Amino acid sequence: MEQDKISSTPKVFYDPRANYCERCGSPMHHRFVAEEGRERDVCRACGFIRYFNPTPIVITIIEHQGKILLARRAIEPRKGYWTLPGGFQELHETLAEGAKRESWEEAGADIEVTQLYTVFDIPFAGQTTFAFLARLKDERFAPGPESLEVGLFSEDEIPWNDLSFRTVSLCLRHYFADRSSGRFPLHSILIDRPDGA
Amino acid sequence: MEQDKISSTPKVFYDPRANYCERCGSPMHHRFVAEEGRERDVCRACGFIRYFNPTPIVITIIEHQGKILLARRAIEPRKGYWTLPGGFQELHETLAEGAKRESWEEAGADIEVTQLYTVFDIPFAGQTTFAFLARLKDERFAPGPESLEVGLFSEDEIPWNDLSFRTVSLCLRHYFADRSSGRFPLHSILIDRPDGA
Repeated sequence: MEQDKISSTPKVFYDPRANYCERCGSPMHHRFVAEEGRERDVCRACGFIRYFNPTPIVITIIEHQGKILLARRAIEPRKGYWTLPGGFQELHETLAEGAKRESWEEAGADIEVTQLYTVFDIPFAGQTTFAFLARLKDERFAPGPESLEVGLFSEDEIPWNDLSFRTVSLCLRHYFADRSSGRFPLHSILIDRPDGA
Repeated sequence: MEQDKISSTPKVFYDPRANYCERCGSPMHHRFVAEEGRERDVCRACGFIRYFNPTPIVITIIEHQGKILLARRAIEPRKGYWTLPGGFQELHETLAEGAKRESWEEAGADIEVTQLYTVFDIPFAGQTTFAFLARLKDERFAPGPESLEVGLFSEDEIPWNDLSFRTVSLCLRHYFADRSSGRFPLHSILIDRPDGA
């Protein structure tokens, strides 16, 4: 599979550990589990295994009359920078439902999700970011508690130097390139260094 | 976004809870967190929040000379049934790396992943399954510890009544339909009832 690679040194890993068992409260033991062929956090008392898997994040490129909706972050990290609405996918929602919810919460935007557009593997952070394309269902939008302001930007108006994260800028660059060709194929991008590195 | 829907009654939810804080071992409190606008498991002592997010699963349709590689499960659930190689995505690997690893572990198959093919949202189970297309890099394969046997099957030979999971049968049906048309667009499928329901 062809995958754009945003490459890396240093490799910084998110490497979580459980000190105590969330089921029974006993100390956990980080040890090799033969049946799994790898190290896990295992409870000495009740045998509970704490699995850590990549965390899914959704972001959305929302288009309206040729412009893109951006929100200025009211919270850290990257407070004051412009971003695409997004956040962690919650349990019991689909990826597209997560995209809809975050667009509503952060930008007061009621959207129709049209397609999955980019998958960003971010293994050093234990994350995968799924970028969707969407349309505004009505013209209204307004900053939620996590945003300072929300606005629609034409390609010329995008504040490229004041964007929040690499996923956001990569997504937007692909989007405008694809728009000029009229096709929006699924992109797969590996990010293996932190923003700024 | 058009999404095939495999619909549901009853809605069975995977609804995990943490009784104890994995950081400090104190009891957790399931309560509404105003800043997040929802209920979370929060530690009374140290403030740690235990987030539960959907867990990513990868499965792979591996093609070789027009046939598809299936493995017969040596473990529950669905022991004895035929499946596509797959499993949970591990921390610090990409989705495609997870697909490669599981194909190696379960079927001794060295593969080249060619594309993301289907995304299954499975919100009632707190899971998302990502199906990839791949090719065998060499002709060898062999059952791993989780498989009883591994074999290559033409479309006529697929054991449709003895497949392991709905994701596997849906994936294979789409694959053969798409192969006859020569195009493999990304599919998005919502599964909102358990297998067998």
